[in-house]
Parts: sequence; C-alpha cells; structure tokens
Amino acid sequence: MRTRAAVALEPGKPLEVMEVNLEGPKAGEVLVEIKATGICHTDEFTLSGDDPEGLFPAILGHEGAGVVVEVGPGVTSVQPGDHVIPLYTPECRQCPSCLSGKTNLCTAIRATQGQGLMPDGTTRFSMLDGTPIHHYMGCSTFANHTVLPEIAVAKVRPDAPFDKICYIGCGVTTGIGAVINTAKVEIGAKAVVFGLGGIGLNVIQGLRLAGADMIIGVDLNDDKKPMAERFGMTHFINPRNVDNVVQAIVEMTKTPFDQIGGADYSFDCTGNVAVMRDALECTHRGWGVSVVIGVAPAGAEISTRPFQLVTGRIWKGSAFGGARGRTDVPRIVDWYMDGKIEIDPMITHDLTLDRINEGFELMRQGKSIRSVVTY
Amino acid sequence: MRTRAAVALEPGKPLEVMEVNLEGPKAGEVLVEIKATGICHTDEFTLSGDDPEGLFPAILGHEGAGVVVEVGPGVTSVQPGDHVIPLYTPECRQCPSCLSGKTNLCTAIRATQGQGLMPDGTTRFSMLDGTPIHHYMGCSTFANHTVLPEIAVAKVRPDAPFDKICYIGCGVTTGIGAVINTAKVEIGAKAVVFGLGGIGLNVIQGLRLAGADMIIGVDLNDDKKPMAERFGMTHFINPRNVDNVVQAIVEMTKTPFDQIGGADYSFDCTGNVAVMRDALECTHRGWGVSVVIGVAPAGAEISTRPFQLVTGRIWKGSAFGGARGRTDVPRIVDWYMDGKIEIDPMITHDLTLDRINEGFELMRQGKSIRSVVTY
Ligand SMILES: [Zn+2]
Ligand SMILES: [Zn+2]
Ligand SMILES: [Zn+2]
Ligand SMILES: [Zn+2]
Repeated sequence: MRTRAAVALEPGKPLEVMEVNLEGPKAGEVLVEIKATGICHTDEFTLSGDDPEGLFPAILGHEGAGVVVEVGPGVTSVQPGDHVIPLYTPECRQCPSCLSGKTNLCTAIRATQGQGLMPDGTTRFSMLDGTPIHHYMGCSTFANHTVLPEIAVAKVRPDAPFDKICYIGCGVTTGIGAVINTAKVEIGAKAVVFGLGGIGLNVIQGLRLAGADMIIGVDLNDDKKPMAERFGMTHFINPRNVDNVVQAIVEMTKTPFDQIGGADYSFDCTGNVAVMRDALECTHRGWGVSVVIGVAPAGAEISTRPFQLVTGRIWKGSAFGGARGRTDVPRIVDWYMDGKIEIDPMITHDLTLDRINEGFELMRQGKSIRSVVTY
Repeated sequence: MRTRAAVALEPGKPLEVMEVNLEGPKAGEVLVEIKATGICHTDEFTLSGDDPEGLFPAILGHEGAGVVVEVGPGVTSVQPGDHVIPLYTPECRQCPSCLSGKTNLCTAIRATQGQGLMPDGTTRFSMLDGTPIHHYMGCSTFANHTVLPEIAVAKVRPDAPFDKICYIGCGVTTGIGAVINTAKVEIGAKAVVFGLGGIGLNVIQGLRLAGADMIIGVDLNDDKKPMAERFGMTHFINPRNVDNVVQAIVEMTKTPFDQIGGADYSFDCTGNVAVMRDALECTHRGWGVSVVIGVAPAGAEISTRPFQLVTGRIWKGSAFGGARGRTDVPRIVDWYMDGKIEIDPMITHDLTLDRINEGFELMRQGKSIRSVVTY
C-alpha cells in the first residue's frame, strides 16, 4: 500500500512529506493507522545528526496513537479495530529481561530495532523509487500508516482521544513512570525536579499523584513556573537566583527535627551531566535517590565523589519510566480518562502533517510543551 | 584512672605505647575494658596522614570487643559486666536517620565524633602531662580502657571470644552487611567482588550466606584465591589475565537463555575509583546493582556514562554494611557462634599491644588479613 509520511532524508534537513510504499504486516506484526503523533526531543536529537546511531533515510516519530487495520499471521493479542499506542520499548513477556520482573527493558527485538528494521531484519517502508526507508525506534509514527511488531503495541480503551493519549507513548509515561516505577516515591516525600519541560511536568504530576509533600522545580527560565505550579510544583528555584542550588535545596528541605536536609528523591530531566551531579548531591544523606531521565550528549560522563554513595545516596536511571508498555500504558490511559492525570494543557500546538517542521521549530525555540500532529 | 594505650602522636610515625589518663564516664557514657582489637586499613589511612580529617594526638582503633566496667548517670541499656562491641556508627534510635528506617547512618553524635571528642565536646583521654588526646571514630580501641557513648556500644552474648568478635566491629559487618542490608542479594544471584582483602572475604561469605549461585572474585594477586575459595568464591579473575575485566564478567555470566550477561550485584572493596566504574559497568543491563564499599583517596571521583544508569544499573554505597549497630551486631555475633559465618581463618596474626606497630607493617605489606591485639 501507499501512505503519507514525513521522511527524514538526511541529518539537519527538514522532514519531507511524501507518499511512501508500505508493505503489509508479516508474521507477528500489525498494520496500524496512526491517528496522532507527538513530536519529541528524541526525534529532534536524531534529525539534527547529533545521535551517533541515527540512520537515514528514516521515518521518525515514536509517540503515537492509532487503530489496528490488519494483523499478520500468528497475531493474537490485538485485532483490527483495536485502539493502540506504539511502544518503542516493547514487552514480549518471554525474554530474560521481561521475565526478571526487575526491568522494563525488553530485549526481544533490540538488535533489529537499533538498525531501523523489523525483527526479520527488513524494512516495510520504501520510497516510491524503491529505496528502503528505515523504521525509527520501532515506531515511525510520522507516517499515516506504520507496521509494528505485535509486542510493540499497547491496546488501550477506545474512547480515549488519540490527539491526547499519543503523548502517553513517550513523555507522559517517561515522567510519571520514573516517579512510580523507578523511584517508587512514597506519600509525604520531598522531591526535586531539574528541568521543567514536558518530561519535568510529567514528573511533577507523577509526584502529585504519589502524594509527595514538597515538589521543588528547578529551571533557568522563570516563565516555566506557572505551568509547573499548575501540575503540582510547590516550590521553585531559578539557579541564577541562588549561590548554590544544592545548598539551597538542602536548606529548603530542613525541618526543626531534621537539620541535615536534602531531598528524598530527585529527577534530572535536563540531559546535562553537571545537573545530574547536582541532582544526586542535593538528596538526603542516608537515603536520597536520584533518577537520571534526561539523555546526555554522546560521550558525556557523570561524576561525583564516591563518598556521596557511601553516605547513602543512590544513583539510578529510568527509560520509558520503567514502564512495561503493554501492561502499564493502558493503565496510564485509564488514569487520564479518569482525571487522575492531566495531558490537555501540555498539548500546546495542534498541527497537520504538512506543518510538522513547524512543530520541530517550536520545540527548538522552547515555545511548545508538546506539538501534536493529527492525520 | 590510668590505662595503657598505643598513641598516634603525629602522622606517619609509629604508634607509641604509653600510660595515659582516662576520665570516668559522664552522663550517657560507659567505661569499657577493651579485651581485643583488630587493626584496620582505616586506622592506617589516618595514621599515614592521608586522611584530611585526621587529628593528632589520638588513640586510634575502632574494631574492638570488651566488657563494661562502669556506667555514667542515665545509662540504662548496659551495665557493668556486659560484653560489648564499640560502634563507630552509633544507633541512637531517636534521630531523623535512625527513625527513617532507611539508613544506619545515625547522626546523633556525628559532629563531635568527627572532632575526636565525646558528645559533650570534651575528651576523656590525656597524656600524663595533661595534653588532651583525641578519641578516634568514637571508639579508640587501641587503649586497654576507653569511654564510649551508651548509643555506641552493642551488647553481645558473653560466651563469644573477644579476639574473634572484635572483627565484627568493622570488617565482618561491613562486608556481610553490604550484601544483606545494602544490596539485599537474593538466592540464586550472580555477584562479583572486586578486591579480595578482608572486606572482600566478608562480602564473599555474605554472598554465600545469601545463597548466591555465582561468586566471582577479582584481584590482581593470584595468592588471594585459595582463601577466597574457602569463604565461598566460585570463580576467580585476575585482571592481568584478561583483555577487559568487564567483558570477561559479562561473558562469564551469560547463559543459554540470557545472552546479555552481567552480574546481578557487584561490590567494590578496593577504594580505586577506576575499579568502581568497572564494578558498575559489569552489572546486568536492566537491574544490576553495584555497591561501593572501599574508601577512595581524598578528592578522587567516580564517573560513568549516564547511559549505564538509564539502562537500568543502580549505583549505591555502603557504610558499616548498612548495619544498625546495636540491633544488628549482636545478631552477627550469634551467626558466628552458630557457625553460619566464619571469622577464625581471617585472624592471621595475634599480637600484644607492645607489638601493635608490627600489625600495621603486616597490613602495609599485605601479609595479614587481620591482625588482632589482645590486652
Ligand atoms: Zn520521546
Ligand atoms: Zn521481553
Ligand atoms: Zn575499619
Ligand atoms: Zn540516631
């Protein structure tokens, strides 16, 4: 079949919207009509050429929602008409990682996904002249139709709006999941969120959902404050206004009883390795947990004195919010539909596929939280 | 009263055994007759002058066992005749740290302990000419008698031999506790121990106690192998014999089912920050936990790519094995008396106080696992 897609032909160039060929689903695969897709920083990271593993030409996009149109042989968990969210972190429920019960990082199709291919080592997309086009993160939601492995789709309730729940395919789950699955924040905790972009806002609403007492946001841009407060931030620090952000957080979290101070949990949503260090070091001696969410530039390293760990701080990271896609994503959709979490205020721009490059430009300029393309 | 002690007069010089003055216990303090003490690397770290927080003159030693001789006003938890192990990590059961249930790092007397003083800000030791002598780690077990805060003694069963259980005051608890309290290793785990000195051996026997399947020891010295095997090591790697120790561990831990490989848990017992990095990076993607136990040189920093954390590895540290001294140390003494853990083969040298400097020399030359001084 043919479908319309925004194709990344080469790094650093705008996407080109065009007709492309799409082969139907093979065994264990499903064909999905994408109804809406968010534009995420990771798409921009790859499009810019900064991603050393970026492949071109490719159909980017990994934050979508749509409807199953056709299923290949052997597919049993979904059928045509099912509403689904594509999963860049699949959940096969059979690999050592899935069966460990300790991680969401399913490895069933990792190798081919990293090569921009379906699990059989081939691509379903091609140019009209026959040139193969790579898949991206196993999703390629910047196409009106895409093919996905069955283990890489989460079936969700049919009454949820595509143009909102697509965001659960990446940003929402990444932020909320880091709080719930990775940090396992408990009621009454004091937490700090570094970076108040889309991920940071979702960490904040995750903390609100988890019942945190103190939700401190840190950002260089004061303009981020009102929206973060709307999602639950209780305190704000602009590092430009304090001598030392670590010390400021330690002071802010002291109580008459606890004169040591420090956050119970911290989250880096910036990708800046110096900030990651601050995020660790501002946590409480004895039990502070710091979670790295942001993606650092290639080659960048985090560092600290080991004393920080020996005195009880824990450094960990989170990918896709530690969420098992097929199991957890439908629950997060339910939470949205039940009003336990909010998404609508974060969708700042609605675009059509023809205007997708405007969405990238808004993101680069920091003018959007999330732009969503609807087909 | 007067007692005999080995006094550290200045950095880099041998200890001097002499008579010193010791004031009796004040409110909340106990006078303990030390019956035996181990000599630990931390004593050497301070004596050498490398410890930037080292104070002189001081009575070092923090790994002792003895008998309560006298208690000060208000002391209720021990009485004369009780057998006790001094605790450099006290357990007040009232401070924010103790009450958190998340850490053993009691802060009740931290400030004065770091200044070489009792909680009231004074010292009980002095030279015969009146010069004050600092306490050390709140213990000063290189004196035949010492004064300790009540919250810094663990009461233990009276039938346990002093010259063995003194080692529980530091090395044994540090190693076993890192496995049990900090890493919480489960039955069937695969673990790696970097550095097969005294702490490493105790980590190994902690892993055996925890039911680990694979206990990989890593040391540059092949001579460490037999003793480590005696305590439960199942595999040995000398980094000189492999191209890349991380890769060697990943390969060794692969199974037909799990072709990713990596240790479930790793422990650094070297204090070398490059080894700490290897220890993190050799753990399994998705769930590996690496515990820093070794004490790094002042100013040294650990580093890694944040990708290591984002893909599911956890970096943490352990001090005094995460053990709450008054609660956990008596249980470890019971384990020793019940034969669940071994100590005797690790006590390689028995000395008298007059020969304490020989114990330091044996440690510097790597000829001892543990030298114990009996009074
Ligand atoms: Zn994304
Ligand atoms: Zn899997
Ligand atoms: Zn020690
Ligand atoms: Zn305490």
